[in-house]
Order: sequence, then structure tokens, then C-alpha cells
Amino acid sequence: EGLRLPPYQLECNGEQSELTFEGSWPEVMLWEIPALAVLMELRSRAVLDGMGRFELQVLYARAMTRVWEKIERLRDAENLSIADFGTRRRHSFLWHDWCVQAMIEGLGNKFTGTSDWHEEHDGNLRIILPDTYGTKGFLDNAPDWLAGWTGIRIDSGGPAEGAEIAIDWWKSRGEDPRSKRVIFSDGLDVEQILDLSARFEGRVQASFGWGTLLTNDFRGLVPDDALAPFSLVCKAVSANGRPTVKLSDNPQKAMGPAAEIARYKRVFGVGRQDPIEVIV
Amino acid sequence: EGLRLPPYQLECNGEQSELTFEGSWPEVMLWEIPALAVLMELRSRAVLDGMGRFELQVLYARAMTRVWEKIERLRDAENLSIADFGTRRRHSFLWHDWCVQAMIEGLGNKFTGTSDWHEEHDGNLRIILPDTYGTKGFLDNAPDWLAGWTGIRIDSGGPAEGAEIAIDWWKSRGEDPRSKRVIFSDGLDVEQILDLSARFEGRVQASFGWGTLLTNDFRGLVPDDALAPFSLVCKAVSANGRPTVKLSDNPQKAMGPAAEIARYKRVFGVGRQDPIEVIV
Repeated sequence: EGLRLPPYQLECNGEQSELTFEGSWPEVMLWEIPALAVLMELRSRAVLDGMGRFELQVLYARAMTRVWEKIERLRDAENLSIADFGTRRRHSFLWHDWCVQAMIEGLGNKFTGTSDWHEEHDGNLRIILPDTYGTKGFLDNAPDWLAGWTGIRIDSGGPAEGAEIAIDWWKSRGEDPRSKRVIFSDGLDVEQILDLSARFEGRVQASFGWGTLLTNDFRGLVPDDALAPFSLVCKAVSANGRPTVKLSDNPQKAMGPAAEIARYKRVFGVGRQDPIEVIV
Repeated sequence: EGLRLPPYQLECNGEQSELTFEGSWPEVMLWEIPALAVLMELRSRAVLDGMGRFELQVLYARAMTRVWEKIERLRDAENLSIADFGTRRRHSFLWHDWCVQAMIEGLGNKFTGTSDWHEEHDGNLRIILPDTYGTKGFLDNAPDWLAGWTGIRIDSGGPAEGAEIAIDWWKSRGEDPRSKRVIFSDGLDVEQILDLSARFEGRVQASFGWGTLLTNDFRGLVPDDALAPFSLVCKAVSANGRPTVKLSDNPQKAMGPAAEIARYKRVFGVGRQDPIEVIV
């Protein structure tokens, strides 16, 4: 209430734009969702601008068919629990709305809504998001009370491997993984959701945060693939004048000065990491 | 002006309905288009009735994509001339309108409009529609002045064969086929349009009356193929108490009492006819 997002700085250099925000962390972090959504929608609108009326209709007809066919495949699977994590990188506001409505009609209570744990859970779902400095090292060094939390997010790296690490970790701390929740949320699409769901059935409570490939799968629908989603992120780059680092479980997603990344990897005991191509 | 369609009689017998009209030929013949269009749209609405909001959207998204992909294929072909002949058996009024608008945007002046020669040509385009009693016999026995007409409709039988018969006939009557028009209009779809267009390029002016598979191609889009178009026709069954007969160039499309069909075939010198499956 009464919150205003801190001011933004936009620098455009030819085809490159740099959008930065400065402010206190609790305020400035709220920029992430609107900033990414606005950038992506501007890109979409720029591409759509030159298209004819029927070309546009058919573009959306194809995209609708694609989303619906994904939903139809998910509908047939049992014990699914899927949330919409696609706000930030959505094709557009209206398209996002269409996708959510389609999920409601198509998936019924398998669809658990759009990511809004903040309001519903008093700001704390007690879900570990461990990949910032590497999942394995984080969990190995975590205090026992963390194993009592509800679950874990698998947001980078091989998702099955990440979940196995979490399951082993819970077991090693005397917890029953079947009472724990694993939320997969890294670049998911239908195939992976179905595979992971089948693989972890009965071993852990799996749920899925389906993002960009739900709300922005326009791959292959226009020439030069000009509407394909890309890996647009909004990250803290410095705090109190010091550069920040994110390691991730996928070295392709690491961010920060190279020397700092290397130092953090050493400090946080990050072992071998396999690079995985980042699609979205 | 001031015209009223003659009254109709509708008899429903379980799943069978019989819709008949009686009146003077110039009046009663005008029933054909609205009667067929209304029946087909009632069928469509009955099938759509139980569908969900997004199922409906995606059904139309798929149908739009299909029509547009057809148009895209036609767009790349040269020297095409296509008219919309799909009013009678259209999926629905609104869908027909969409298809026509899409043709306008997609095909530009390759699309020559919806069949309305009546208004534009004072009721006489001078196009022969010879298949009622068999094309071959009709042309062989036709008076020479008929070869002076603008062109011919190929509305049943093998379309390439029919056009070859017409070309040979014009030559035999001293006419240059390259100045003549052949209008193909029997159950056309893109593949056939492109094939026939290529085959007769430079030999005759080919144009295409694209009907049911333009305005009602919902094949395979709902369970049990309940929206697939079918061969719905409206024909004169008797005149002054005597049964009427249509022979067609495809014996599958012949109509009338079997004995009368046989007699007409003999009288009009219809030779061998190959049966062709009727899709629409």
C-alpha cells in the first residue's frame, strides 16, 4: 500500500537497451516482473506491427492450438499439479490471460493458479530455492532445521538430478521425502512435465511451475522466428557497490564478474556442473 | 423485388428429415442456397452445443489455421483465378464470412469473389453447365452456336478428363480453346486446384469455383468427425407430376428413379462412366 517502484534508468545504444533500477532490495526487487513483462510485450508488438489482419488471426490461432494441445496432453496425466509461472516472460498481457483461462477450463484442479504465494501464505511458503550458489553445496552445509521446510524449488541444472539430490538430502536428515514437495520450474514444457511427474510419482510430491513455454511459445510461428521467447532476466548486479554473483546449477546461467564467479564456486563448494542449453 | 420464397414442407422422421418445396421453377429454385445453408448451420450448431468455451476457440483456431494454410499455398501459384462457391454448404454464416475475408487478404486479385454472376452479367455469363445429362453426349449433339459461348463448367466426373473433352470439342468446332474458360467446381481442394491449374496453363483459361472445402473443412476436428461436411443437395424431384432425372458425369451423383436414369442414359447417349467417391 502506498508503494511506488523506485525510478528506472533506460539507456538505449543502437539495438542494445539497458534497463536498471536502484533502490532498497524489498522495493527494487518488485521491478522484475513488470520490467520483463513490458520488455517482452514491446518486442511482441514490434514484430506484430507489420502483419495483416488475417496473418495476425492465424498467428494467434496457431498459438492457441499449440497451447491447447499441450493442455490436452497434460489433462490425460494423473496426479498433476501445475502452476502458471509465466507472468514475467509472457508474450503479452492478453495472451497470458488467454493461457490462464485455457488452463482453468482444460486442467480443472490440476491447475493451481498463478504464482502468488506471497499473498496466500503470509510471505513464507517455506520452499527452499537453493540454486543461487549451487544446490549440492547449499544443502550439504544447510542446518538441520531447513530439512523441516515444506519443499524445494528446482530452478536450474538437470531437474531430475536436482530432485534426486533433494530426496537424498531429506533422507540423510531423517525426513520422509514423500511428505515433501519438489517444485520444478526451469524452462519446463509438456514433455518434461510428464516425464518428471511419472519419474517421481510416489517418491515425492512433485509440482510444476510452468512459465515461458506456457505463456510465450510462439516458436516457429513467424519468419526468422522473431517471436520466439528468449532468456530475458532481471538480476541484482551490485549491492553497496560490490558486484553480486549468481552461480545457478547450470554454469550457462551464472552471472557476475568471472573472477567473482570462480571465487564463489570455490567458497560454496560447487562441484562439477554440466552446462545445459538455455532456451528460455 | 417483392419476391417471397414459396412455402416449405418439413417432415421429420426420427433422425431423417425431409425438406421439400413446391412452386414455379424460377421461384422454387431460389430455395436451394438458403435451405442447404440453414440445414448445414443447424447441424454445426447442434455439434457445437456441448462444447466448452476454449474447446470452441481452439476448434475455430484449428479451422482458421487450416484455411489460411490452404490460402498460403494458393498464394504462391501464378495465374490463379478462384471464386468462392461455398455459400450453400458452409459451416455457418460467420465462418463463411471469415473465409471470404481471409481470401481477400491472402489472395488479392487471384480471388474473384463469391459466385454472383447473376447480378453482374445480366443473368447470362454464357457458361455451359453440361453434366446434367452427361457432358460427352451433350457436347457431341450440341448446335454449333453453343461453341461460341464463353466457357464451360466442369461439375462432376474426372475434372481433367472433362476439360480435355471440352478442349477437344472446341477444336472440333473451330474454336481456339485458349480463348475459352473452363470453370472447375466439383469438390475442389487446394491440391486439385494447383494440379489442374498447372495442367491447363496455356491451353485454356482455367478458373476455380471453390466450395465446401473452403467454407466447411472441419474434417477431423471433433470426435466422430461430427463436423465433417457431407454431400447435401437440393434437387428438383418432379415437374408436373413426372419424376426428374439428373445423370451427372459421376454415376454416384445420378438422381431419380433407377428405371428413368437408365432410360435417360440411353436417350442421351451417355457412354461409360467411372464412379468417383463423393466427399462433398
